[in-house]
Amino acid sequence: MATQHRAAPNAARRKETSRQAILAAAFDLLREVGYAKLSIEGIAARAGVGKQTIYRWWPSKGAVIFDAFLLLSASEGEPPVLPDTGDLETDLRLVLRATVEELNDPRYDQPMRALATEIAHDPDLAAVYAERLDGPLKEAKRQRLRSAQQAGQLAEDLDLDVAVEMIWSPLLNRWLHHSGPLTAEYADRVVATALNGLRPRH
Amino acid sequence: MATQHRAAPNAARRKETSRQAILAAAFDLLREVGYAKLSIEGIAARAGVGKQTIYRWWPSKGAVIFDAFLLLSASEGEPPVLPDTGDLETDLRLVLRATVEELNDPRYDQPMRALATEIAHDPDLAAVYAERLDGPLKEAKRQRLRSAQQAGQLAEDLDLDVAVEMIWSPLLNRWLHHSGPLTAEYADRVVATALNGLRPRH
Repeated sequence: MATQHRAAPNAARRKETSRQAILAAAFDLLREVGYAKLSIEGIAARAGVGKQTIYRWWPSKGAVIFDAFLLLSASEGEPPVLPDTGDLETDLRLVLRATVEELNDPRYDQPMRALATEIAHDPDLAAVYAERLDGPLKEAKRQRLRSAQQAGQLAEDLDLDVAVEMIWSPLLNRWLHHSGPLTAEYADRVVATALNGLRPRH
Repeated sequence: MATQHRAAPNAARRKETSRQAILAAAFDLLREVGYAKLSIEGIAARAGVGKQTIYRWWPSKGAVIFDAFLLLSASEGEPPVLPDTGDLETDLRLVLRATVEELNDPRYDQPMRALATEIAHDPDLAAVYAERLDGPLKEAKRQRLRSAQQAGQLAEDLDLDVAVEMIWSPLLNRWLHHSGPLTAEYADRVVATALNGLRPRH
């Protein structure tokens, strides 16, 4: 009995160690070879496990990459919160400039593209992504806008979901489709245009 | 000599017929099986040509799909123009509602996702897409906004590129990432929010 009690936690720990080695290998390989050339065989070889071990836990390479992202985001700890100095435009500029830097970072470019592609082709994965990864981030964005709305800085009848999409979608789109340069100046202009709107302010 | 003069156009015509058969087969198959399961072999079988014929003209299945889109868009004839009744908000609602219908159309869903995915992973293809497919459409959008700007309906210092992205990116993002319902009401709300901005109008 005593042996069994010790055996179970050890097996669980070994399993968790393998799992983390696989996720780290997947993330590294993705960066090195790109999503198209990433294979379960390659991940298994890099992680030093059999490919059956991977297939036992994940149905596809997309699912492995997704869990690698979850691990990365969980390791960052606390749920996300946006800065709130009371000056909405300044806070949003700061956040969008950071987003631009992240999107331009070659370490994350391939993994993020792979994730975006998987989500585009798999509605079930999109639902998990929305709930576990994007959901908390979107709520933090809405919360920052809600605080500004309560301070009378945003329109009373503003739809916060649409507002969040209006601020962040142009950056994500430009990045994903390589349709223009992503710079700090662009981030600032998106913030100002979203806040002020397209119509003249008199 | 006379025979040769006839032979050349016939060969060109046969080549064009094969090319169009291949592109039509690729588009149909993509709709039926999805991008992940689409193969050059499958396209060749459906089009009734050898797969070497396809590889002679295109380097990858993504390149085939891309040309299928070009053919589809070229067959629509004239360069795109947005409606201009003088009432910008009404015109944009009309256009965005049509975009929503197109994005919700199961006939185009898989091919458009495939194209978006290829563009996300291939900057060279993205450049061709920007020039030949998206470019003329973006210019039509800018032109409609420019006309409103000249009529004093939009801010004088408005960046038209940012304005176009602010109106269309939320829809494309929501569609691509399955992150929310795409309805006519949503289209209307995006138009109103972009035009008015997030801040209160006094």
